[in-house]
Amino acid sequence: MQVYLDNNATTMVDPLVVETMQPFFSELYGNPNSLHKFGTASHPALSKAIDQVYTALNASDKDDIVFTSCATESNNWVLQSVFTDLVVNGDKNHIVTTEVEHPSILATCKFLEDQGAKVTYLPVNDQGIVEAHTVRSFITDKTALVTVMWASNETGMVFPIKEIGDICKEKGVLFHSDAVQAIGKIPVDLQAVNVDFVSMSAHKFHGPKGVGALYIKDSQKLTPLMHGGEHMGGRRSGTLNVPYIVGMGKAIELATANIEETARKIREKRDRLEDSILELSDTFVVGDRENRTPNTILISIKGVEGEGMLWDLNNGQIGASTGSACASADLEANTVMLAIGADSELAHTGIRLSLSRFTTDAEIDYTISHFKNAVGRLRAISSSFAIQKPTEGGEVKECELHHH
Amino acid sequence: MQVYLDNNATTMVDPLVVETMQPFFSELYGNPNSLHKFGTASHPALSKAIDQVYTALNASDKDDIVFTSCATESNNWVLQSVFTDLVVNGDKNHIVTTEVEHPSILATCKFLEDQGAKVTYLPVNDQGIVEAHTVRSFITDKTALVTVMWASNETGMVFPIKEIGDICKEKGVLFHSDAVQAIGKIPVDLQAVNVDFVSMSAHKFHGPKGVGALYIKDSQKLTPLMHGGEHMGGRRSGTLNVPYIVGMGKAIELATANIEETARKIREKRDRLEDSILELSDTFVVGDRENRTPNTILISIKGVEGEGMLWDLNNGQIGASTGSACASADLEANTVMLAIGADSELAHTGIRLSLSRFTTDAEIDYTISHFKNAVGRLRAISSSFAIQKPTEGGEVKECELHHH
Repeated sequence: MQVYLDNNATTMVDPLVVETMQPFFSELYGNPNSLHKFGTASHPALSKAIDQVYTALNASDKDDIVFTSCATESNNWVLQSVFTDLVVNGDKNHIVTTEVEHPSILATCKFLEDQGAKVTYLPVNDQGIVEAHTVRSFITDKTALVTVMWASNETGMVFPIKEIGDICKEKGVLFHSDAVQAIGKIPVDLQAVNVDFVSMSAHKFHGPKGVGALYIKDSQKLTPLMHGGEHMGGRRSGTLNVPYIVGMGKAIELATANIEETARKIREKRDRLEDSILELSDTFVVGDRENRTPNTILISIKGVEGEGMLWDLNNGQIGASTGSACASADLEANTVMLAIGADSELAHTGIRLSLSRFTTDAEIDYTISHFKNAVGRLRAISSSFAIQKPTEGGEVKECELHHH
Repeated sequence: MQVYLDNNATTMVDPLVVETMQPFFSELYGNPNSLHKFGTASHPALSKAIDQVYTALNASDKDDIVFTSCATESNNWVLQSVFTDLVVNGDKNHIVTTEVEHPSILATCKFLEDQGAKVTYLPVNDQGIVEAHTVRSFITDKTALVTVMWASNETGMVFPIKEIGDICKEKGVLFHSDAVQAIGKIPVDLQAVNVDFVSMSAHKFHGPKGVGALYIKDSQKLTPLMHGGEHMGGRRSGTLNVPYIVGMGKAIELATANIEETARKIREKRDRLEDSILELSDTFVVGDRENRTPNTILISIKGVEGEGMLWDLNNGQIGASTGSACASADLEANTVMLAIGADSELAHTGIRLSLSRFTTDAEIDYTISHFKNAVGRLRAISSSFAIQKPTEGGEVKECELHHH
């Protein structure tokens, strides 16, 4: 059995989405900007996809939703263009964000610091979230933008976006949220919150990798990141990726059509898996279940290094993660666990398990069994877990805790 | 019969390319940055795709080829990042380009002018190209970058990239070429020219829309346009679009494997079509055939407005263009024809026909027949073509030329 439990990194494209995209490769392949019928043939499908995204997010007709190549582009776009519009060509100089944002936010902030911006990186509480009052206390009259994730890729914790949005509106500060880990997992109603910009990515909800969007409230001004041929009303140039846009529309429709019911089923499986792992001694999970996306567990297993566990799970055909895939080439401590105050040793013990609507009960059963055995195996050889083993003379000796 | 003659706008994805991409949607869907086998399963295919691109362009192992979402991104990246590196954070202030670049170059130059750059837009000669000595005479010690297209999207004319590259090297100025219309149509050997950056796009050579690349000679420094999770060695963040990258590799291999032979066959069809249309009176084609990409004709038919002709061809199931698809929502004069000195009326009469390796002889026959009839029809109702028509009294009257 193969079990994919890394759905916060990326998801399988739903076969229904692949089917929807298929005609736009070699049949209806015209450039939608062309005037002839080869070009216009894809217009109905594009219109439908746009409608599907608006409907899924309850966006208003006054708002813009602009397709991009991914949420990394959407995030870079908002940050770099607000910097151009309000810092370089305005009188602001300050951005507020969090320590636990996705690298596409954090690295862009670092870049903008090099270009002269001041950036405040807010710490998270022991639940792994930033509280709204913390955001309020760091906004100044020089603040151009607040950018806070909707839900964490690593812990699944949902941030208080409604409250932060209300504060930003009151203060007259632009508010952006990277909602990549929220959309398709929990209901997102863009008319119920004061948020100016929202980033999203299709491959997190069973659409293809390489297409995302940026929501722009009230179609407000924002300098493009990609200048050129006036595609999408001049907002984002580049020939439209017709198959993927059509696929993203289908994917978001499938992911949100019965989101409460789908989420409930995923949550049941997640909770069962989580409860079983927590039966093991010296394990803990980051963040209250009720305030997490229904598919995510970030669990720490004392004495078991994340990479070792990953390797053992991998040998058992189970795909998991120690955190963000975007940083997983580096075997570093989990930055979110460090941010919530875990010590460095504990931060190396995090394992993230993220389910999807395609995860089955049989896969959960298999994972529970393999996971428990793996923890036993790895703790038996661990130099950092206080194991009790009988000496030759039958005595019991406590091993020393090592710091890696 | 349907005839697609707008291959400079976009191309049909080769069915072999679609087949190559297929497994990476719902089977090998892992994030290639993940450490588990779902992630690493796509690595061999990604490596192969990279090799295919290097081989097709004869890039050196010392060079970088970084996948992007399209050539518009590649063009924006080079221009905006050279501006950041050498103008904002350096002592240069000047960019040299041409009047006939793609909108993704021209609009980005306009944006950089707003940010303080000085840009020289070089005019083209009556062949529609910029000569190397013209470039030389506009380079100053403040010039950061020269950017000149490899071949024109509108005329197919090939620019003197080797000569311009030699001049830039001699002057110590960075040189970028948008090679979107050259790659897959004519041999491009990146070790035979001094070019620092080259943009390309898969959908111009029967790959999918939404993936391109930037070639970076000697892997030299260039600030990223998209900051984030250190994908592609930190050069371009965003989860890799595995299916499209694999598809682009296959597409460039198919497009370049027998490029001389393929080009010869396309050229034969193109020349036959061109010869037939030129049999009509008062028609002319921009640029010497020998120096054009083998698939392109930009033809002016006196007295026939481009849009009217497009409409008539469209009714005959023939897809053509009045120029760049990226600007074709606007019914404006063809900018290249204006740039080569055509008057405004003539500039409204341009029709671009662009073939591909999938264009058949039967399609050319059909197009010749329909095209000639269309010219007859449109000239008969034209207010701008000096038609001779018998009056009621049998006399012949010359209509006045109108300027639209």
